[in-house]
Amino acid sequence: MAVSTETRTSVWSSVGQFVLGRRLPSSHDLRERLSNVGALAVLSSDALSSVAYATEELLLVLVLAGTLALNWSVPLSLAIIGLLAMLTISYRQTIRAYPQGGGAYTVARENLGTRTGLVAASGLLIDYVLTAAVSVAAGVAALTSAFPALAGLKVEIAVLALLSLMVINLRGIRTTGRFFTFPTLMFVAVLASLIVTGIIRFVIFDSPVPESKASAVADNALAAVTVFLLLRAFASGCAALTGIEAIANSVRVFRPPETRNATRTLVWMALILGTLFIGITFLAHKFEIVPSVNETVVSQIARIVFDNGPAYYVVQIATLLILLLAANTAFSGFPRVASVLGSDGYLPRQLSDTGRRLVFSNGIILLALLASALIFVVGADVHALIPLYAVGVFMSFTLSQAGMVRHWQRLKGKGWVHSAAINGMGAVVTATALVIIATTKFTHGAWLVVLLVPAALYMFNLIHRHYELVAAQLSLDGFVPPMVAMRHTVVIPVSGIHRAVLEAVVYARAISSDVRAVYVAYDEQQAEQLRQKWEKHLPDVPLEVIQSPYRLVVAPFLRWLDQVRSDEGQLVTVVIPEFVPRHWWEMLLHNQSAWMFRLALLFRRRVAFTSVHTHLTR
Amino acid sequence: MAVSTETRTSVWSSVGQFVLGRRLPSSHDLRERLSNVGALAVLSSDALSSVAYATEELLLVLVLAGTLALNWSVPLSLAIIGLLAMLTISYRQTIRAYPQGGGAYTVARENLGTRTGLVAASGLLIDYVLTAAVSVAAGVAALTSAFPALAGLKVEIAVLALLSLMVINLRGIRTTGRFFTFPTLMFVAVLASLIVTGIIRFVIFDSPVPESKASAVADNALAAVTVFLLLRAFASGCAALTGIEAIANSVRVFRPPETRNATRTLVWMALILGTLFIGITFLAHKFEIVPSVNETVVSQIARIVFDNGPAYYVVQIATLLILLLAANTAFSGFPRVASVLGSDGYLPRQLSDTGRRLVFSNGIILLALLASALIFVVGADVHALIPLYAVGVFMSFTLSQAGMVRHWQRLKGKGWVHSAAINGMGAVVTATALVIIATTKFTHGAWLVVLLVPAALYMFNLIHRHYELVAAQLSLDGFVPPMVAMRHTVVIPVSGIHRAVLEAVVYARAISSDVRAVYVAYDEQQAEQLRQKWEKHLPDVPLEVIQSPYRLVVAPFLRWLDQVRSDEGQLVTVVIPEFVPRHWWEMLLHNQSAWMFRLALLFRRRVAFTSVHTHLTR
Repeated sequence: MAVSTETRTSVWSSVGQFVLGRRLPSSHDLRERLSNVGALAVLSSDALSSVAYATEELLLVLVLAGTLALNWSVPLSLAIIGLLAMLTISYRQTIRAYPQGGGAYTVARENLGTRTGLVAASGLLIDYVLTAAVSVAAGVAALTSAFPALAGLKVEIAVLALLSLMVINLRGIRTTGRFFTFPTLMFVAVLASLIVTGIIRFVIFDSPVPESKASAVADNALAAVTVFLLLRAFASGCAALTGIEAIANSVRVFRPPETRNATRTLVWMALILGTLFIGITFLAHKFEIVPSVNETVVSQIARIVFDNGPAYYVVQIATLLILLLAANTAFSGFPRVASVLGSDGYLPRQLSDTGRRLVFSNGIILLALLASALIFVVGADVHALIPLYAVGVFMSFTLSQAGMVRHWQRLKGKGWVHSAAINGMGAVVTATALVIIATTKFTHGAWLVVLLVPAALYMFNLIHRHYELVAAQLSLDGFVPPMVAMRHTVVIPVSGIHRAVLEAVVYARAISSDVRAVYVAYDEQQAEQLRQKWEKHLPDVPLEVIQSPYRLVVAPFLRWLDQVRSDEGQLVTVVIPEFVPRHWWEMLLHNQSAWMFRLALLFRRRVAFTSVHTHLTR
Repeated sequence: MAVSTETRTSVWSSVGQFVLGRRLPSSHDLRERLSNVGALAVLSSDALSSVAYATEELLLVLVLAGTLALNWSVPLSLAIIGLLAMLTISYRQTIRAYPQGGGAYTVARENLGTRTGLVAASGLLIDYVLTAAVSVAAGVAALTSAFPALAGLKVEIAVLALLSLMVINLRGIRTTGRFFTFPTLMFVAVLASLIVTGIIRFVIFDSPVPESKASAVADNALAAVTVFLLLRAFASGCAALTGIEAIANSVRVFRPPETRNATRTLVWMALILGTLFIGITFLAHKFEIVPSVNETVVSQIARIVFDNGPAYYVVQIATLLILLLAANTAFSGFPRVASVLGSDGYLPRQLSDTGRRLVFSNGIILLALLASALIFVVGADVHALIPLYAVGVFMSFTLSQAGMVRHWQRLKGKGWVHSAAINGMGAVVTATALVIIATTKFTHGAWLVVLLVPAALYMFNLIHRHYELVAAQLSLDGFVPPMVAMRHTVVIPVSGIHRAVLEAVVYARAISSDVRAVYVAYDEQQAEQLRQKWEKHLPDVPLEVIQSPYRLVVAPFLRWLDQVRSDEGQLVTVVIPEFVPRHWWEMLLHNQSAWMFRLALLFRRRVAFTSVHTHLTR
């Protein structure tokens, strides 16, 4: 018996090891750190990959006012790049001030108080879920643009991708980095080639632009280009900036000197992002691309530039891969934030347990579930998710920058006014963007996030209060240990008389001299039969028979038990004889009444619950 | 605490009572019996309702050879009615011979041996599932014929119907009868009116027949009318006979004298069924109806006869209701057969537990789940289910009749040769029909049932063997009760030191003088902190610290425990300090490590497992 169990355990261990990698001891922490290129691959993919959809989302709003309005795309993109520059400068300061990792939660909490920190944290958590969902959905859109036959399987592919990312992340962060370094560099190289080739062929040599075959998303409705419309397009384009906070959140994954490495990587990322974004917007403008329902804007551009040849497919595959990396950013960010909240007692503590491979396994699994649910609800549609997306990000940006202002003000170190001014400008600019995003997209889904944040805060407080109450009640301060019980009665509920019952009786006698068996009878005849057998085998153990005309077992037993334990100072142990079959499926063939007893006794005081197991060997 | 638990329990009791009715004591059994009309309503609906689809299934095969082949429908229907007459005479004898209920399983097992009985039983179980699925699907087809707008919700409506039937049946059989008496009589009356009106208007007064607007299912492919095709059409039409065994299975639900009441009800049922079936086939022939994908044959007939007026909708509603009753027949039959198999040890014993309302609750729930799964897989399509349907029924018919022949032969009572001859003819005829059905429909799905029967037999044997082995191992014959253990060690795994730990220690001391605490440490620092606190509060309980660099808890603990209990004669109790929060959701906020310990210790010998609960009050 024992042998077969251990064999089974080791088979499962092997499967676990194959899927998740071998267990890592706690001391491996430093060796799991990332090189700058590796960190760029893991942490920048969210920001870089937004090139795959930001231009398209911007055009989607402009096209509502007709194709002429699309001319606004270039100036709006430049405004967004200005915002990017501002954020980069701001976040460089955050990295220097918080070398241990300056996530919006940490910064806002430390400088603006716990409540504000929690607001930032709720924004971050919401956005990590959206990052995972949006990126995977956009990746699937890149795939179905190239292979339209897969369009019917969007949701299935997206959920499969999320589950794969979950497994990869449960294996641990460095494995992830190694796994993904190549595709990030490939995406940057491929998009750069796309932009350069496009500019050389169609701007410098001025080739004629072939017409796109994708079906346009809207008629040429010639609505006026209002300021509100431009602000909405700007808000949609701001999706390009999501993810740039990832590096500041994760300074600790860099090798020493962490601060310098993180700052450099941040600047590189901003430069690459800005270049790719304006390049794609420029080509979309040049080619007069109109967003389509069945093909992404990047796919349309690549088809034109590369004449639908093999290079086109390379672009689509590289886009798919970087978007999977972007989703992966969420898988490294969400569990970290959730773990911090968990260890501070605002989320379930299990979220801060490190798993077998030194990652926050529960957070990874939770993210995969939430993002899959979101994908399922919106049918893997990027456009439906974008309005929810940027609100939380810009809320975190704003709070983080505001917190930094307070930080410099408190420390008053050398040149603090300069530093505070930079972060202050950052805060004002991102706050303005936040207001623009929340108002222009409110009716398109942003309202949901606006509701979710207070709901999350309420939940945080509920959980925190619970942990505080538990700690107070479990505290040893002023606790007088209960007296050892005067009398100890052992009660054994039985359904008949057999070996398992006898073994339970042997155990019961070992722990108390007052042992009683209880039988719940449906009819008098059965009861009489048992009484006779009992008298023969266990004459010295009293058998109590309870009649139960309604064929209930637990309720009549509890009523009887409550009489026994009514006496203060009386301690009761309920011993359940259970037999353990050899195979798990055999458990399905037996009443699981032990579980019902266990559940029912959970709420009774001064009752201990003991299982005595008889093991079947055949 | 105790108060709040009891309040919660009583709220759930009230909900349970509202949905399921109040609990019934065991003595209510006789009062739950049915009148003849009530039994006709509950037990005959399966047979009667097949009028709603049998003609259609027959036509669907014939139309493959072109519309002219449809002329064969009337002679084939008459052949099926001949089979019905034969079965009725045969089953009258079964009822007389088995007043306790002569289901195919009982009859075949008693007369032809256990193995044959189990074959019959597997056929019955499969067919009850199909009865529920086919009837509900056909009912939904009647509904969507009248209200085509609902066509997109077929599966949802069907599953909802099955769940409603489940709840109704969990309430108990007499409530069911009362609930359903009216609709059965209504269906018979309405179909009789339909047939009579149709014959008067279009046969006697010879009105012109308007063309049906339903879209035909096939082109006029002029294939030859082969014998094989006619046999296949006959096999499909045999769906009309499914369900006539229900009365013989359930003689005990009749009021005394059970035998006479059951026999009479059977004959009435056969007469009504035969009349309605030939009537519908005749009108379909007269109106030259061709089966359609979006409207049932009965619906097409009713539209013509009642000029699409209110009476048409009455026919459709009555058809829907009788088909729900038919599904309900399965809900009374399946749990009975499953319960017999359960108490004989061929299926899980829980299937023979009577629930709070004296019905086999587990069987009812199992049937609802299986039928819903089937509906889901075939998308609530009747035609896809029919080929699976009749194989099991005719297998049971044949085995039951063959068993009866053996029965008369064994008893050799007055006129036994006559009785045996009748059942013998029944057996030969149904065996012939079985061969026809299995061969002509093999490639259309009957193969699945042909595979399922041996699979079910294998499962029955596996389960039976398990119960026998358990009984042998738990038997007290030759059992030497184990010696009371020499030494009893109590082990308390702790994660820190708090009130729950202290309460566990108090309990442990009450049952043994050898108490040890065990702490699994991730790092030395935490361990040292705990050692100091422990020394202060519990200096006289030894604290064992186990290092766990891989952050596992249970595995290192088990290794340590195995050393402690390595000694024969050593008894170990593992006491787990658990605290019980006030609300169930608060459990989610704590590591459920107690469950992991419980599971791990399930397979260790000579280890008792005890939970000591500390109740939080805030």
